[in-house]
Amino acid sequence: MVKFEAVPGGVTAAVGFTASGVAAGVKYKGKKDIAVIYSECDAAAAGVFTTNVVKAAPVILNMERLTSGRARAVVVNSGNANACNGDRGMADARAMAEEAARLLGIPGEAVLVASTGVIGQPMPMDRIIPGIGSAVANLSRAGGTDAAEAIMTTDTELKQHAVSFCLDGKRVTVGGMAKGSGMIHPNMATMLCFVTTDAAISPACLKECLAGAVDRSFNMVTVDGDTSTNDMVVALANGMAGNREIGDMGEDGCRVFREALTEVCVALAKAVARDGEGATKLIEVRVVNAPEERDARLAARGVAASSLFKAAVFGEDANWGRIICAAGYSGARFNPRAVDIYLGDVQVARDGEGLAFDEEKAASVLAQKEVRVLIDFKEGDHEATAWGCDLTYEYVKINGSYRT
Amino acid sequence: MVKFEAVPGGVTAAVGFTASGVAAGVKYKGKKDIAVIYSECDAAAAGVFTTNVVKAAPVILNMERLTSGRARAVVVNSGNANACNGDRGMADARAMAEEAARLLGIPGEAVLVASTGVIGQPMPMDRIIPGIGSAVANLSRAGGTDAAEAIMTTDTELKQHAVSFCLDGKRVTVGGMAKGSGMIHPNMATMLCFVTTDAAISPACLKECLAGAVDRSFNMVTVDGDTSTNDMVVALANGMAGNREIGDMGEDGCRVFREALTEVCVALAKAVARDGEGATKLIEVRVVNAPEERDARLAARGVAASSLFKAAVFGEDANWGRIICAAGYSGARFNPRAVDIYLGDVQVARDGEGLAFDEEKAASVLAQKEVRVLIDFKEGDHEATAWGCDLTYEYVKINGSYRT
Repeated sequence: MVKFEAVPGGVTAAVGFTASGVAAGVKYKGKKDIAVIYSECDAAAAGVFTTNVVKAAPVILNMERLTSGRARAVVVNSGNANACNGDRGMADARAMAEEAARLLGIPGEAVLVASTGVIGQPMPMDRIIPGIGSAVANLSRAGGTDAAEAIMTTDTELKQHAVSFCLDGKRVTVGGMAKGSGMIHPNMATMLCFVTTDAAISPACLKECLAGAVDRSFNMVTVDGDTSTNDMVVALANGMAGNREIGDMGEDGCRVFREALTEVCVALAKAVARDGEGATKLIEVRVVNAPEERDARLAARGVAASSLFKAAVFGEDANWGRIICAAGYSGARFNPRAVDIYLGDVQVARDGEGLAFDEEKAASVLAQKEVRVLIDFKEGDHEATAWGCDLTYEYVKINGSYRT
Repeated sequence: MVKFEAVPGGVTAAVGFTASGVAAGVKYKGKKDIAVIYSECDAAAAGVFTTNVVKAAPVILNMERLTSGRARAVVVNSGNANACNGDRGMADARAMAEEAARLLGIPGEAVLVASTGVIGQPMPMDRIIPGIGSAVANLSRAGGTDAAEAIMTTDTELKQHAVSFCLDGKRVTVGGMAKGSGMIHPNMATMLCFVTTDAAISPACLKECLAGAVDRSFNMVTVDGDTSTNDMVVALANGMAGNREIGDMGEDGCRVFREALTEVCVALAKAVARDGEGATKLIEVRVVNAPEERDARLAARGVAASSLFKAAVFGEDANWGRIICAAGYSGARFNPRAVDIYLGDVQVARDGEGLAFDEEKAASVLAQKEVRVLIDFKEGDHEATAWGCDLTYEYVKINGSYRT
């Protein structure tokens, strides 16, 4: 593993990127709700999108546009998902890109679009179009944090992370921002993530690196195939670091870049899990010694997503039966009579049976802000880690009255 | 559709069955926690069991025993799941059957066993064995209700239902009892159901009829493959109604019997959904005009299981976007731009887009104790119905401190 240096900033940490976030009144007065990210020069671009049958208009638009593997800007609004809005929704998404392109003096196809908010409500284009104007006018190297703020919905904390490392004697930076909450089923709320880098990398390699990074990060808080209408992770790489372009998945530089990208995505995914709606604790579930990686992934996600276990963590109740039960229905293959389970450093089960563990010590593990669960299948050498949060009264409150 | 007459009672409604429920102190003092169901004569028997990799000892025992297709009694305890207890758990399950068999004067193999409660705690056999003695001593035709009470855990209402109909000029009765709660993921809490009938039917036909009935009832509140360690539905048919034995799935009598069994199972499954932990409302999701039954089933269950939609129903917020979103990630195939959605009799979406519906009228639909959602895919002629409940503060409270 390469050591990466964490650096300040998010989407504007890498050379050649500016960003902004402004309040346009899309939903609430005074809340920042339009963000723009802009690269000084043309960039390789890649995206990973929701697998939901119902896709929001900007998702459909970006999937078309990214077949080119290039983009220069992203315009994002919060407060309205622009999903289930039919032909009008598609026209509105295109109009957002066009307006940004016109003001930036770049082709419309070079602009990607993202939206998050309520489904099935017409977009207030009379506020969004002027908002884009204001956002473009405010683009700056210091604007990454404003942009990260503008994409928040029920998020309580701003999420950005960046790392820096040396490649070919050049300093390369990878930075990103994310939003996403509504974590009871980690997958049902909209998750947006935008990553920028000054690395020089081919669109094909960027796409493959991004898919791998998402698989180990957002897909471990977001169960595959169980996604909202608007989920997307988009990466732009403008090459301004000056490294020799990464063009082969086999080369060392590509491996290092992929690790950096994964580190940024994991940090942002954990931030999303930690800030789950109403959450008070981050839950990390690591499954080791599984027969296949697939089994480790399924079991880790199954436990992290178990509402019964999440409620038990909130209640600080060391109910390990809910852990083995969730692993059991997750689809993972394992021998139930070989499983060891640990809460923090307290072993609570051995060979699939409960131990007479120290309840006070287990309760103190559950009282922490980060609760670690380790499940040892003792059947192979594959592992996976998933993240979630506890299930609280506050979650129910937030989601009982989100729309109104 | 045959009209069935609802009759009083549950597992003792059919001729030749007695039952009882007694308090043995398995977990709480004074709560009934041991039930026995007994047939005066040998009965055809069939079961449907959890698909969880981790199976409780009584599930493993019954799966072995039901290969014979015959049984005469069932002994059930609440308060302890007897899951993840290793060899000792298997020995305890066998000892429960042996004790009941000894007292009833029947072979040990003729007794089935079920448990529900906390996972991974040793069974308090010093209380369970005397409890079985007391339960056998109390068997009576009037004991069905006591038995239904004894299997309850976090259930707030006793669940039993029976119907009667004419077959071959004989009166045939099918009755059952169920327990099950913890409905956030409808599938994660233990669901137990026991059905008795005086119909004469071959074990093979009983098995097939039961599988079909469970598919349209409990499997529509319990997502396939996502089940607890202890779930089971067991049916006993003792033939005392005197009808000519049903021995062929094609015969009319079999069709009528299957409908009656399905009606009992649906009534009990709805009762389980309505009594979901902390629930204040029953949610019924019906999907019509789907390309295949599979699509209708997946979409109906996906929506009924959506935590975001369940929280919206609790908050009485007509957030139909969460309905189409859940259908979209459910795995069902459909055209998102053809979907119509109704809340009660209020149409909220047409062709995948929102309508300007009457918010007050929609809120009044959501304020009812039974909330009906209709989703029309307009693409075929298959349909399915699923049931769930709203997600409330109370759910979190119950599950934050179940074990302790």
